[in-house]
Amino acid sequence: MTTAHPTHHRPTRRTDDVRIDLNSDLGESFGRWELGDDAALLSIVTSANVACGFHAGDPTVLRTTCEQAVERGVAIGAQVGYRDLAGFGRRFIDVPPADLTNDVLYQIGALDAMARVAGDRVRYVKPHGALYNAIVHHEKQAAAVVEAVLAYDPGLPVMGLPGSRWLRLAEEAGLTVVREAFADRAYTPEGTLVPRGQPGAILHDATEIADRCLRIVRREPVAAVDGTAVPIEADSLCVHGDSPGAVDIARTVAARLGAAGVAVAPFTAVGAS
Amino acid sequence: MTTAHPTHHRPTRRTDDVRIDLNSDLGESFGRWELGDDAALLSIVTSANVACGFHAGDPTVLRTTCEQAVERGVAIGAQVGYRDLAGFGRRFIDVPPADLTNDVLYQIGALDAMARVAGDRVRYVKPHGALYNAIVHHEKQAAAVVEAVLAYDPGLPVMGLPGSRWLRLAEEAGLTVVREAFADRAYTPEGTLVPRGQPGAILHDATEIADRCLRIVRREPVAAVDGTAVPIEADSLCVHGDSPGAVDIARTVAARLGAAGVAVAPFTAVGAS
Amino acid sequence: MTTAHPTHHRPTRRTDDVRIDLNSDLGESFGRWELGDDAALLSIVTSANVACGFHAGDPTVLRTTCEQAVERGVAIGAQVGYRDLAGFGRRFIDVPPADLTNDVLYQIGALDAMARVAGDRVRYVKPHGALYNAIVHHEKQAAAVVEAVLAYDPGLPVMGLPGSRWLRLAEEAGLTVVREAFADRAYTPEGTLVPRGQPGAILHDATEIADRCLRIVRREPVAAVDGTAVPIEADSLCVHGDSPGAVDIARTVAARLGAAGVAVAPFTAVGAS
Amino acid sequence: MTTAHPTHHRPTRRTDDVRIDLNSDLGESFGRWELGDDAALLSIVTSANVACGFHAGDPTVLRTTCEQAVERGVAIGAQVGYRDLAGFGRRFIDVPPADLTNDVLYQIGALDAMARVAGDRVRYVKPHGALYNAIVHHEKQAAAVVEAVLAYDPGLPVMGLPGSRWLRLAEEAGLTVVREAFADRAYTPEGTLVPRGQPGAILHDATEIADRCLRIVRREPVAAVDGTAVPIEADSLCVHGDSPGAVDIARTVAARLGAAGVAVAPFTAVGAS
Repeated sequence: MTTAHPTHHRPTRRTDDVRIDLNSDLGESFGRWELGDDAALLSIVTSANVACGFHAGDPTVLRTTCEQAVERGVAIGAQVGYRDLAGFGRRFIDVPPADLTNDVLYQIGALDAMARVAGDRVRYVKPHGALYNAIVHHEKQAAAVVEAVLAYDPGLPVMGLPGSRWLRLAEEAGLTVVREAFADRAYTPEGTLVPRGQPGAILHDATEIADRCLRIVRREPVAAVDGTAVPIEADSLCVHGDSPGAVDIARTVAARLGAAGVAVAPFTAVGAS
Repeated sequence: MTTAHPTHHRPTRRTDDVRIDLNSDLGESFGRWELGDDAALLSIVTSANVACGFHAGDPTVLRTTCEQAVERGVAIGAQVGYRDLAGFGRRFIDVPPADLTNDVLYQIGALDAMARVAGDRVRYVKPHGALYNAIVHHEKQAAAVVEAVLAYDPGLPVMGLPGSRWLRLAEEAGLTVVREAFADRAYTPEGTLVPRGQPGAILHDATEIADRCLRIVRREPVAAVDGTAVPIEADSLCVHGDSPGAVDIARTVAARLGAAGVAVAPFTAVGAS
Repeated sequence: MTTAHPTHHRPTRRTDDVRIDLNSDLGESFGRWELGDDAALLSIVTSANVACGFHAGDPTVLRTTCEQAVERGVAIGAQVGYRDLAGFGRRFIDVPPADLTNDVLYQIGALDAMARVAGDRVRYVKPHGALYNAIVHHEKQAAAVVEAVLAYDPGLPVMGLPGSRWLRLAEEAGLTVVREAFADRAYTPEGTLVPRGQPGAILHDATEIADRCLRIVRREPVAAVDGTAVPIEADSLCVHGDSPGAVDIARTVAARLGAAGVAVAPFTAVGAS
Repeated sequence: MTTAHPTHHRPTRRTDDVRIDLNSDLGESFGRWELGDDAALLSIVTSANVACGFHAGDPTVLRTTCEQAVERGVAIGAQVGYRDLAGFGRRFIDVPPADLTNDVLYQIGALDAMARVAGDRVRYVKPHGALYNAIVHHEKQAAAVVEAVLAYDPGLPVMGLPGSRWLRLAEEAGLTVVREAFADRAYTPEGTLVPRGQPGAILHDATEIADRCLRIVRREPVAAVDGTAVPIEADSLCVHGDSPGAVDIARTVAARLGAAGVAVAPFTAVGAS
């Protein structure tokens, strides 16, 4: 986690003095429709990216998820997205930046009400789906989301892809940024994600995934999709929970890290590393 | 305005030592669709019931309305409603109470984000449309809205119809209640509103309306629809702005009260009367 | 199935000369959210109540469901509901009758496009959830739905609860009505459904349910919740598919009827009985 | 209007043997929110692009608009758009093509129900807003909309911008295409529209606009934004009605054409020219 300045390569480290955050998407049910095993994930992860109602999550789901997160000491993040229930926020929408800023503010405020009623508050912001992907490169939308966080609370950290415009602009604006790596995704030699749909983009072997996660935490390079070694810097590891297999992987990752002496804890509990 | 105890009839009073609040519905545009002359109303009223996105109002409308209200010293209230854009919140929905509580919390939180970014915060809660009407009698929905306000901030006043279950339950729960009268609506001899659609339900003569408002402020009885005198107690007068005629009436009411020496000011600025 | 005249009690009958329709709710997924095992049900039922997008079902779900129904010779019905994705159409909405008529027309037309592209067309209309329950008694909403069907196609049959205002008004208007019984629901001695939530309202034993269904088809009385015998007249049996257990029950019912020589076939294939 | 083959430049023609269609966007109100002077426009135009509920228009608005169009002999077109009430369909959404096809089918079917109940049927399809603009170039979305029209009714004409991928693909698929020109928009020397927001993009002088329209009907070149002469081929002229000034312009155009002996009539009434 870095604050307001570019990140640099760091040497490998022993695991008995390090911590890592595990984050996952939660609160993505809507009305009659259930999605994901939130109960299982909340016993594994340390940061919960809670949907805010625009792409998923109704008010009752949001509140319940916040209450359960607080009970388990899991940090609540605002998983903000495009207004697109039908597309689950996975379709790029060319929202004018000023409107996007306000859409994000609205979502953060709504979730914060639920977090506060549950006894905590929103601890960070992580964009979802197509918005997450768009602001890797889309300058104006990236700046619009940064502006929303700044306006709401300049002390609120933001989570995203290392090297993205989103994190770059956030750092320049003085926001604390949390860089995440994806446990179950393959990387290119350049350290970007292999796009979904390409061969080998998604990893399935729990042991292999857990090993990779441990290497990332130790700041050791991992094998890119072409076999070359690539360094991946991360303050948080993203795990998924939308299938029984995904929950198993998350559980294996957490167990492997714990066995290696890594403290799995919310990044919010750590000082800037 | 009373806190946590039943209200009693009060003697008439001179206007040079009294204050009254004027409230109106604002922020009810949505995307391409504009509704109401918000700019005109914000120069007249002292409390703005700002829509929260469920029955009207998109995030940009909410933020703009909050900013304009703060600029003019107008208090921001959360005008919470059913999730019903197609019906403008004017159709009763049999929402389970626990879900209704969460729907209201969500809306208050979202608007509060906008109010805080504008430099103030949500100062009160006033239900809208069919929800307003339902909780005059609907015990469980009334209690659900009270619970939302209590959970969010027990110091947040609530506005509504004198004698409603809503205000009764709010008082019993220790909330500050703001009783409102409707400037342009006829009353029954019992002091309830003549339902829309019945003959004479809506008043149109600006001078007559302004005179009635002055009588209400002075705690003098007004003429019910059948001509009998009926006392109307109010901490705030509701005026409308969804037609040019309505804005003219609001302007006439404010001018008449001012000429009579009544201080038109947000109820939030007054101590409990 | 009766046309345009009141129904009367009919004598019991041998099963080798009778047919029955099995109907179930389908197409209730929405975007990322899946609900129900449509594939399994489409191999069991003969009539598919396909959601039309207002309470569930997006256009792609509707089209896919229609295509699969046509492939299997299952009749397509328009499962029309209130505009309420968040409540899955299970919350009463006080929609003005003229608007309700148009909401229903809109939904029938949208589904009919999908049905026609799939090679068939909408064969009947069955209201969903809170609308289904409301028009058992709600005169104006019942009449509004009847008006929609009449306007769209007076030859389109309607499905519902025997004795409901909905079927009564439909018959009076000259529509063909299809009376349905619920395989897994307990009945009162008066032949109405025991409300969900009351003890014994839902039956769980597949064999018992299948036996009851066979009795209904044979026009033999079944045991009401208090043990008394009650006659249940039905042209179609409603089975559910929103849980693995429900699909098993549906399968058992179909097998039991088949073993008894009952022809399980779409009511649309039968002449008026 | 051409069918299934590329269009070529045509010589200028006398007006007393020609016809032109006038089209306008209608039915764009939604619930409480009114937009446009539909009554005025329906007495001017010959083709009504009626919104279908995804970007604007609720079922009651759709039905009323269809009924009024039929009363006045105005042809009903399906003005299909992205599912985006908040953005009025003016924001590009990266909808997967298969879903877009189904979204369009759904909208056509819903409007067709209203048109048929009103005594006519949907006579053509014209995409709206950001979808209109996207499929000028976006191959996959253009093909997706063509596929929807083909699947619904290969005899249904489509309306759009001459030279667009949309019309090109529609022609190749055998659909009848209706090329439209915009009465109040400036053109580039290449015959494309000057983008909104650029200087001179919108014309405001009713007389000038009416003169241009007459030139287009006569197949005489008009002045591009840089003063050069540019030929504009059109089977229909698009006029607007979302402001009092716009309605005046539409009226002036219709009067000018009529005075010049041009038959203003629905393109649907004309044989292929």
